[in-house]
Amino acid sequence: MSRTGISHDESCDPTGMARSKQPSIGEYLIQRIRDYGVRHVFGIPGDYVLSFYTLLEKSPISVIGCTREDCAGFAADSYARIHGLGVVCVTYCVGGLSVCNSIAGAYAEKSPVVVISGSPGLNERVNNPLLHHKVRDFRTQFEVFEKICVAAAELSDPVDAFRDIDAALDAAVRFKRPVYIELPRDMVNIVPHVAHRYHPLEVSCDRRVLDEAVDETVCLLANAQRPVILAGVELHRFGLQGRLMRLAEQARIPIAATLLGKSVVRETHPLYVGIYEGAMGRDDVTRFVEESDCVLVLGAFMTDINLGIYTANLDPGRCIYATSEQLRIHHHNYQGVALGDFLDELIRRRPKQAARDVPAALRPSSERIPFEACREQPLTIRRMIACVNERLDEETIVIADIGDALFAATELVTQEHTDFISPAYYTSMGFSVPAGLGALVARPHSRVLILCGDGAFQMTGMELSTIVRRGLSPIVIVLDNHGYGTERVLHSGDWAFNEIHPWRYAELPHLLGGGRGHVARTEGEFLEAIAQAWDDRSQMNLIHVHLEPHDCSESLKRLADRLAHRV
Amino acid sequence: MSRTGISHDESCDPTGMARSKQPSIGEYLIQRIRDYGVRHVFGIPGDYVLSFYTLLEKSPISVIGCTREDCAGFAADSYARIHGLGVVCVTYCVGGLSVCNSIAGAYAEKSPVVVISGSPGLNERVNNPLLHHKVRDFRTQFEVFEKICVAAAELSDPVDAFRDIDAALDAAVRFKRPVYIELPRDMVNIVPHVAHRYHPLEVSCDRRVLDEAVDETVCLLANAQRPVILAGVELHRFGLQGRLMRLAEQARIPIAATLLGKSVVRETHPLYVGIYEGAMGRDDVTRFVEESDCVLVLGAFMTDINLGIYTANLDPGRCIYATSEQLRIHHHNYQGVALGDFLDELIRRRPKQAARDVPAALRPSSERIPFEACREQPLTIRRMIACVNERLDEETIVIADIGDALFAATELVTQEHTDFISPAYYTSMGFSVPAGLGALVARPHSRVLILCGDGAFQMTGMELSTIVRRGLSPIVIVLDNHGYGTERVLHSGDWAFNEIHPWRYAELPHLLGGGRGHVARTEGEFLEAIAQAWDDRSQMNLIHVHLEPHDCSESLKRLADRLAHRV
Repeated sequence: MSRTGISHDESCDPTGMARSKQPSIGEYLIQRIRDYGVRHVFGIPGDYVLSFYTLLEKSPISVIGCTREDCAGFAADSYARIHGLGVVCVTYCVGGLSVCNSIAGAYAEKSPVVVISGSPGLNERVNNPLLHHKVRDFRTQFEVFEKICVAAAELSDPVDAFRDIDAALDAAVRFKRPVYIELPRDMVNIVPHVAHRYHPLEVSCDRRVLDEAVDETVCLLANAQRPVILAGVELHRFGLQGRLMRLAEQARIPIAATLLGKSVVRETHPLYVGIYEGAMGRDDVTRFVEESDCVLVLGAFMTDINLGIYTANLDPGRCIYATSEQLRIHHHNYQGVALGDFLDELIRRRPKQAARDVPAALRPSSERIPFEACREQPLTIRRMIACVNERLDEETIVIADIGDALFAATELVTQEHTDFISPAYYTSMGFSVPAGLGALVARPHSRVLILCGDGAFQMTGMELSTIVRRGLSPIVIVLDNHGYGTERVLHSGDWAFNEIHPWRYAELPHLLGGGRGHVARTEGEFLEAIAQAWDDRSQMNLIHVHLEPHDCSESLKRLADRLAHRV
Repeated sequence: MSRTGISHDESCDPTGMARSKQPSIGEYLIQRIRDYGVRHVFGIPGDYVLSFYTLLEKSPISVIGCTREDCAGFAADSYARIHGLGVVCVTYCVGGLSVCNSIAGAYAEKSPVVVISGSPGLNERVNNPLLHHKVRDFRTQFEVFEKICVAAAELSDPVDAFRDIDAALDAAVRFKRPVYIELPRDMVNIVPHVAHRYHPLEVSCDRRVLDEAVDETVCLLANAQRPVILAGVELHRFGLQGRLMRLAEQARIPIAATLLGKSVVRETHPLYVGIYEGAMGRDDVTRFVEESDCVLVLGAFMTDINLGIYTANLDPGRCIYATSEQLRIHHHNYQGVALGDFLDELIRRRPKQAARDVPAALRPSSERIPFEACREQPLTIRRMIACVNERLDEETIVIADIGDALFAATELVTQEHTDFISPAYYTSMGFSVPAGLGALVARPHSRVLILCGDGAFQMTGMELSTIVRRGLSPIVIVLDNHGYGTERVLHSGDWAFNEIHPWRYAELPHLLGGGRGHVARTEGEFLEAIAQAWDDRSQMNLIHVHLEPHDCSESLKRLADRLAHRV
């Protein structure tokens, strides 16, 4: 099984046709998602999807019931980021329209999530009756998902159904974007009488275009004095991290990462220089990247957050910009060059080794600075992150919600295989707890650390219910500054609309009948809580961290300075 | 102020132009929603909508911050049902796409909700940058809402902005459907230099069509031996309940209500015969309605649930079907007749009095049967409803969530002004708690009773946070049968996907720092809890009711019998 979890070897029977009998439409859909390594489906049953749920329950796939559909969507997204493909299965409209936001986030950040929605049976639709859950007409939900998915299929015709399933799944895996599959409830058990065999999609590559692009790149790298790689999240999505490292190590090119791409490169690697985010990031990293005469931007989205709200000062005339969607060198484009092919060919051509070393100040320290608590000192987010930093190891998955949870977490130093997951471009609050569920289901033996602000926690934190139910054991840190703290900083003034109601978060384990709660107001209390939580692999641990309303990280302060005049 | 809360009298200054200076686009939008009686806006702030939130906070409108956007949508829907117009205000995409389901429900059930969404400034969009929260392109959210709203406007042009605001609000009020208004953040404070005056929409009526339709109706009623009125929810939405009663009392025509229209007629009225829902409802009511030789269907949606999953046996050849969208007599249609005009003209013409009396068995008893508890008896939903029934009075608003909370609640007898609110057509679980918030904000002195299953409660029940925060005092009954009970009944078999994790619901008040929790397993315990809760107007009371997993109401049993073969 590859890192992306997608496997097409023979044992998996990718054709789905070695089975003893012709499958029904519902069975074929299940076979095909299993071919891509999917072992779990997130969702909530509802009457238009009960037949398909029954099939799922009889299949080897585990159904992970969530408390709400949007949480199931976030969990499937996180599962997809770790495992290569995620699936959320819901009922018509009341279910489907509840995952719009999660799926839009997966689209924006390129996470391949398959949305399977039940719908009224075709036989029920005669004369356009007002069936429950219907909004405007029977196409409404389909038309909405066409806007936020890279492909959409309605399995309303037995002749086309298998081909439509294949095409939708191919699109999800190829473009790393969500796809939508609508399954009318009277089609689930229909067995199409068509001969069908899955043919994996072959994407052709024009060798001459590739050669010319790589020639030019090799030449630019050879002439550069100060080349640098800016690594983005697509390297992770497309399973290209190994190739990135081979290229960088061969040519000894220093690497910076974007915020969304944090953990694409392990942050203790000697070539790693830090997160580049324009004026929002650390000065010395910004200077190192912007002084480069050849920036190899690989798999990075040029978003406002990644670019420090456009304070980045990267001259396109010195950039080679290669993503899954385009290859641009300076001001000209090459069409149809796949990112993986481009990297492979670059590696084969062994570009000249770079002359510039990583400056000592940027070089990651191999030793960690031990955290020394001032035990009575009120806790700040900066100190809390420093304390957590000590704990990260190879099996940690850090999931940061939006707000200072994310900005502060940029200071964490990920280790060999530490994963860092955050909706750092789409920035939808409430991602982290359900994403923690998805991560633990995808990789049960990892140590999942969830960092979540109080505002975000109030949106979806009750998904801890499913975490407790399944006996999973993440560490959840709720950063309580009594409101939407980032907005307080961005939009100065103490506006009442940024205040939220205080909860006794540490009592949730009791309400949910599982897990352990901790409260920390001082450094000493936090040190004790995190030590107990980290040692406890038997249950979920929730730490309620009290912060001053205006406490914020250095990153957020820098961001605020840049954004303030725009909001 | 009329029942619907919409007032166009002079004191309200409907033109919005008597103000001292030309307003900005944001100010005009606030003026115009205030003209419709809106005093509260539900939502969550976010960076693309902060400027508008600042205007709101400075205005006389109260901003009701919710825990999540979809809850804000449900609350605004409920506020609209009671008050005539509701408003939800959110940020771009992460906020807007989170209210798709609530707004789709408002569309399906005709509730006039205005969605105001911030969006990136027009000046920021040059060269189509990847701004955070963006999904596909800057039009994505607009295109999604076009599918689920009756009108959509983007306020991107100062010349058109005022007119676009007027048109959207007119559409919401005229069609009783949600509308979408997108406000780029750099347009909020723009002051258009155009002369503008609001002209209320005038809908013309062709007198000759109206006369012919009323002639025919009067004639049919005169010749009918057994006329009956089937009253639907539109009578409430359009404020026509008074006219309904005048017509029915003049002509002594018995009235049945649809499920969605429950409480449109007070259920103790001597002409009221009960809820009609085909084979799903009580046999004697079904027989009474279906034996009629002239069914005057007024403002009812002919939905599957209203029609008892199409077990209703209403011969169109004996129906007069009048809604806000159409007027059909037997098999022919009249175009362009407004429901209100039709009722007015019918009343003016004083149809002949009906010959048939309401049978004694159907006649509502003026005395209530006192509930006598078998104190040690485990509680059932049927007995619980009987107990609650004693308590309902004129100021009660009953809000029933989907599932047996709704089906069982059909047995409640509403009093003079008791309101019954439920998403009985769109049937989106999780409506009731946020809708309870909306109802209490709209009518603070009412007694709000929320009936909610455990599955539905786990979706949105944490909105109690906002209820506690604002010191509101509903009674919340959580019906805990350990899962999706309705699905268990509809789709027989004990499928694991219908199980949910148990919560200690009665501990929520402690977690939220307000309210009181009760637990009831027996009739005696429930009797005590409801008595304490009803007498306590100082705080929220939550009663956790334990039910057997397969306990269900008579209505749900009947529904299951009809639905089972379809799901």
